[in-house]
Amino acid sequence: MSPKRVNASVITIGDELLIGQVIDTNSAWMAQELNKAGIWVKRRIAIGDTWEDIWNALDEESEQSDIILITGGLGPTADDITKPLLSEYFGGTLVVNESALANVKHIFENILKRPMIESNLKQAEVPDNCIVIQNKRGTAPGMWFERKGKIFVSMPGVPYEMKGMMINEIIPALQRHFALPFIAHKTLLTAGIGESFLSERITTFESELPAPIKLAYLPNYGMVRLRLTTIGNEKDILKKELEEQFEKLKKLVAEWMVTDKDLSLQEVIGKLLKDKNRTVSTAESCTGGYIAHLITSIPGSSNYFKGTVVSYANEIKENILHVNPQTLSTEGAVSEETVHQMVQGALILLNTDYAIATSGIMGPDGGTDGKPVGTVWIAAGSREKIIAQKFWFRFDRQRNIELASTNALNLLRKFILSEF
Amino acid sequence: MSPKRVNASVITIGDELLIGQVIDTNSAWMAQELNKAGIWVKRRIAIGDTWEDIWNALDEESEQSDIILITGGLGPTADDITKPLLSEYFGGTLVVNESALANVKHIFENILKRPMIESNLKQAEVPDNCIVIQNKRGTAPGMWFERKGKIFVSMPGVPYEMKGMMINEIIPALQRHFALPFIAHKTLLTAGIGESFLSERITTFESELPAPIKLAYLPNYGMVRLRLTTIGNEKDILKKELEEQFEKLKKLVAEWMVTDKDLSLQEVIGKLLKDKNRTVSTAESCTGGYIAHLITSIPGSSNYFKGTVVSYANEIKENILHVNPQTLSTEGAVSEETVHQMVQGALILLNTDYAIATSGIMGPDGGTDGKPVGTVWIAAGSREKIIAQKFWFRFDRQRNIELASTNALNLLRKFILSEF
Repeated sequence: MSPKRVNASVITIGDELLIGQVIDTNSAWMAQELNKAGIWVKRRIAIGDTWEDIWNALDEESEQSDIILITGGLGPTADDITKPLLSEYFGGTLVVNESALANVKHIFENILKRPMIESNLKQAEVPDNCIVIQNKRGTAPGMWFERKGKIFVSMPGVPYEMKGMMINEIIPALQRHFALPFIAHKTLLTAGIGESFLSERITTFESELPAPIKLAYLPNYGMVRLRLTTIGNEKDILKKELEEQFEKLKKLVAEWMVTDKDLSLQEVIGKLLKDKNRTVSTAESCTGGYIAHLITSIPGSSNYFKGTVVSYANEIKENILHVNPQTLSTEGAVSEETVHQMVQGALILLNTDYAIATSGIMGPDGGTDGKPVGTVWIAAGSREKIIAQKFWFRFDRQRNIELASTNALNLLRKFILSEF
Repeated sequence: MSPKRVNASVITIGDELLIGQVIDTNSAWMAQELNKAGIWVKRRIAIGDTWEDIWNALDEESEQSDIILITGGLGPTADDITKPLLSEYFGGTLVVNESALANVKHIFENILKRPMIESNLKQAEVPDNCIVIQNKRGTAPGMWFERKGKIFVSMPGVPYEMKGMMINEIIPALQRHFALPFIAHKTLLTAGIGESFLSERITTFESELPAPIKLAYLPNYGMVRLRLTTIGNEKDILKKELEEQFEKLKKLVAEWMVTDKDLSLQEVIGKLLKDKNRTVSTAESCTGGYIAHLITSIPGSSNYFKGTVVSYANEIKENILHVNPQTLSTEGAVSEETVHQMVQGALILLNTDYAIATSGIMGPDGGTDGKPVGTVWIAAGSREKIIAQKFWFRFDRQRNIELASTNALNLLRKFILSEF
């Protein structure tokens, strides 16, 4: 028997999402954490700071889901109406909560070290019929309501504050409250093959998957992640079945598989370098430091990453990376020979085992007939050997930078693997 | 009389959003463009790849809005059910569209240069009761339906493809179809003041705003954007009133204002450097190339940005930026003296008028009692003068890197302004 799914709706409140000045990263994070806990996010909805829209959303989502998580609309400024609305919606009265007040005072006295103003004090007010969830990272408390078997939780929209509450208080409380089914995912990452070709490759596998297991394609940055998911009550059977199917899938896509874990490409490379006790540096022109950023976004990257020269100007390529001026004038900055010499320069200057180099035209301007916008030369290698590859990305500047960077990291990954 | 608002709902289809493996950037972009055209986004909703959820969402959103924009669920792989559903929802039949088929063939023959497979051909099928919107950037066509005065448009979820359709086809068609009210925004960016203190400063201004004008606070990366919006039919009067109120607001927050245009900090700095005909470089430790990435994400940045040394390892600080080894051993890498010397090193090595340097502990590990995680020293300056400032960020690694980078750019901005 298939278990009853516990469904959640995530409501995000704030005009800033509806006019598009802010990208919603909270919902993705919340969905990840809820899924891990066996709670399925059925719907995510963003609405404006208006009484009617918020009220309707609470009505609608409580028809659809067992859990309604609300973020945003709790700041100290005047465009926030969420708290009075929640108070009325659940038939309560706003009162000062003493522990929330103590928290606001503590934050101003000991952390911010500045005087409070009226609007800060108002943050300690909560409806008298909610359970208060203390905010250890900010001044706005969270609120937990129950009605007709449904759980409603309101949190501030500041990601760092919301995350603290979710991990420490809300998810454990939801796990206690509901008898949650077992849910498990197995994910692998592929590079160098498009979604439709992958699909062709594994179409029989997909059609023969046992009922509780589902396959999803998650394309991103020119790579495709494949995820198998199972959900149900018989944990041990489901786990074993998922493992078996995952092993089958791995064999089918072995040629393009970057990792069989839920890791990013930069995590995979970090692990590889740490395991082999090797170091890396980058010499970046068109990627402008983005490869270095991807590498250093991983905690502990100082163990294998030493540094970068971003050589946006040709004089930096010449004077610091020692690219031959002759090469730059005859072959051009966007050429195989230039990125080859950039790798050599980085290896010596930054004293690492491996180096990556990029040079290209990211757009929107600067293209020529022979080298249109999106043309990028990438090289990776060691003192013994350097490999290079030409790419042509046909997207906007930001995406071209991202694609050039992930392809450069993948070229390094393949180079390292070919060595061992 | 207040004009009738034209409301839109944005529906995003795909399990990948509900499990949080993908961050939704499409909706924010769509909202921005719709707003510019005078269309208000009333709701944004994300749902899974299930027949019932999609069907219900179409029913619900057409109750709420005049325009229903749908993205996602149109890829070549098997988990996509959107197209058959749309066909049934609007009472049509799936047929091969000749121009869409020609487009798919063209892309495979001339751009991808590989053979097509069955699932690619299926992308040329559309319901026979829609207007086909050609996709010049990919294989999945867009579909435009009308029912009971409501417009429904389905687009692929690939950002680059969706953006092309929206700008070139859909928004112009919506503008022709509806008599749209006038909408205008004026935005300014502040740095160095919190939301609640800003609010205290402008509370009287806000309460005295004339009816059609609304103020919104948009905090991001430790900065706060203030936006005035007006909407209505009398364009000239509304425009004049908005200008007047915006001038008042600018005076009230002059001390913290970075720009009175809807620009990013890196765009403001780029403009400043171009106007003054000056160049900049960066010497980054803890920010790992992210400042260089922010600068080079702006088209044309090669006019004022020359390059970067990311000195993650102390040996790079010593050997390339010529930081005194004595300083590193007595003061430590995270110190005022170190970032001061990093600026000096970058100015000489990279031969620029200005340089920025950062050194800090981004976490989660590496903190000490004297220098806890989040401690960052930032310096900016020229050959004549260097200024430095210490920060303590209390967030996760990613956000600490972002905050250190924007604060470094802001320090440079203030330094340049103090010079002229």
